[in-house]
Formats: sequence, C-alpha cells, structure tokens
Amino acid sequence: MNSLVKKLLKKKLKISFVESCTGGLLASTITSVSGSSKIFNLGLITYSNQSKIKILKINKNLIKKYGAVSPECCKAMVLNLSKISKVQINVSVTGIAGPKGGTKNKPVGLVYIGVKKGEKILINKSLFTLKNRLSIQKATVKKALKLVNSFV
Amino acid sequence: MNSLVKKLLKKKLKISFVESCTGGLLASTITSVSGSSKIFNLGLITYSNQSKIKILKINKNLIKKYGAVSPECCKAMVLNLSKISKVQINVSVTGIAGPKGGTKNKPVGLVYIGVKKGEKILINKSLFTLKNRLSIQKATVKKALKLVNSFV
Repeated sequence: MNSLVKKLLKKKLKISFVESCTGGLLASTITSVSGSSKIFNLGLITYSNQSKIKILKINKNLIKKYGAVSPECCKAMVLNLSKISKVQINVSVTGIAGPKGGTKNKPVGLVYIGVKKGEKILINKSLFTLKNRLSIQKATVKKALKLVNSFV
Repeated sequence: MNSLVKKLLKKKLKISFVESCTGGLLASTITSVSGSSKIFNLGLITYSNQSKIKILKINKNLIKKYGAVSPECCKAMVLNLSKISKVQINVSVTGIAGPKGGTKNKPVGLVYIGVKKGEKILINKSLFTLKNRLSIQKATVKKALKLVNSFV
C-alpha cells in the first residue's frame, strides 16, 4: 500500500474514495502512510441511503429499484464522486459487511467495488465468505487497493 | 467503543464525523461495530484544504489566517458539518499526524478535536508526543471517542 502511494505520487495521480460498508477503513489505510496527503484529497463515507442521496446526489429511484448494494449504485457512486472530487482516480465501495442485513439474493459478504480512471470504469463484484464483519471490511479494502493498483 | 454505540442507540442520537489528520480512522473505528449504521450516517474526510473549502464550505480566508490546524478551523469544521449532516452529535478532527509538516508553533502531534451537541460546542487541544504517525492517529481517535462519550 506504501507502494501504491509511491506509484500514484510518481504518476502524479490523485485519488478519492466513497465508502459505504468499509466505513472509512479504505481511506484510513491509505492515510496511515506518510506523504499520502500528496495523493489523497477527499473521502466520503456515505453510510446511510440518505447521505448517498444528499451528499453524493445518487438518484433515490435508483436505490429504490436496485438497492444501495448493486452494480448500478456502485457505478453511480463512483461517477458522482468523480464529479465532486475532480481527481483522476475515484473508488466506490458498497456492500454488506454483516453480521446482519444479508438476504438470499444479497448475502453478507457481497461487495461491489467501482474504480474510475478518466473515462474508464470497472465495477467488481466480490463475495467474501468470511466469518466476521471486520474480516469482510479488511478483505474489501485489500481487494479495492489491488484493483486500483492494476488500474494505474 | 461498543458501549458508545450502545449509548447512542439507547439515547436515539446519531453521529457524524469530519476528519482531517485521522483520515477515516475515527469513522472506521465506529463502523467496525455491528449495528453502527443505526447511529452513524455520514463521514467526511476533508484531507486537503481544497476539500475543506469546497465540500465543507470553510471560508478560505479563515484557513489563510489561522491555518487548517487551529481551534478556529476545528470549530468551523464541526459547525459546518452539523449543517450538512443534520444529526445531533458532530465531531471534527484536525491536526498534524507527521512525521513531516510540523513547525515550532504547530508541532507534529498537535490535534484539535471539536464536539458539537445541539448548541453546545467543545474544542479540545491535545499534543500527542508519540513516536509515529499511526500512534498519533490512534491516540486522536481514542481521545475523540472519550470526549464524545462524556458529551452524550
């Protein structure tokens, strides 16, 4: 992760995050690195649907139709973040960290990660079959940073 | 911290954070607790001055006059967050986690924490004389949660 900060620095790229289920863990992982202020400018933790709608300007009908944990919402989150942050790399995370909140169609551990660089957008679906909430959050952060690393 | 989530739940209070030097660690500490979605709605990580000005609507002249790490900026951050979040408890953090960025007047480890509940505002100044960045970030989170706990 230190190497990702160095890579972004070298390529003069800046990064922003919008997190739901990871609740700030993605941003805090990057900001634990000294010098990260040169590559990270903004993180939004839109934990509630209301904050997704109000702060991130996600269409409430989109959330109603597909749910907040969906590729559609994940894509809208990363797109709208990029309009706010104005930086080159934007990342969105939405999922179910559990232990509650899972359903048959959307089980605990289901996570969507969006990465946008310029006009290129990647939406990744993961299902982390891990025992607890923090393990799912940590696995999501690891996956998100891996995806970003392959993108820059 | 589990007990703080329970306390907020019991008192039907919601909390929001705006973080600078802790970079998401405060929010991720709360969101590591299952059920935190009932008490936490929004976190902003305004890491750059630009994001403090643009997202949080901090007056750029205030930052120019006092600096981002100042009681004045900390107070403006918690006030403006409360206008955005519309929840009862709001917390702001601004400081110098280091290892770089310190000066004689504003050394590494200097941290301001703002807590607002209703019209009551507390601005706390701490100086954490710890060896590394992550220790300062962790000590800041611990202090912020302690202050919140005494406030609710």
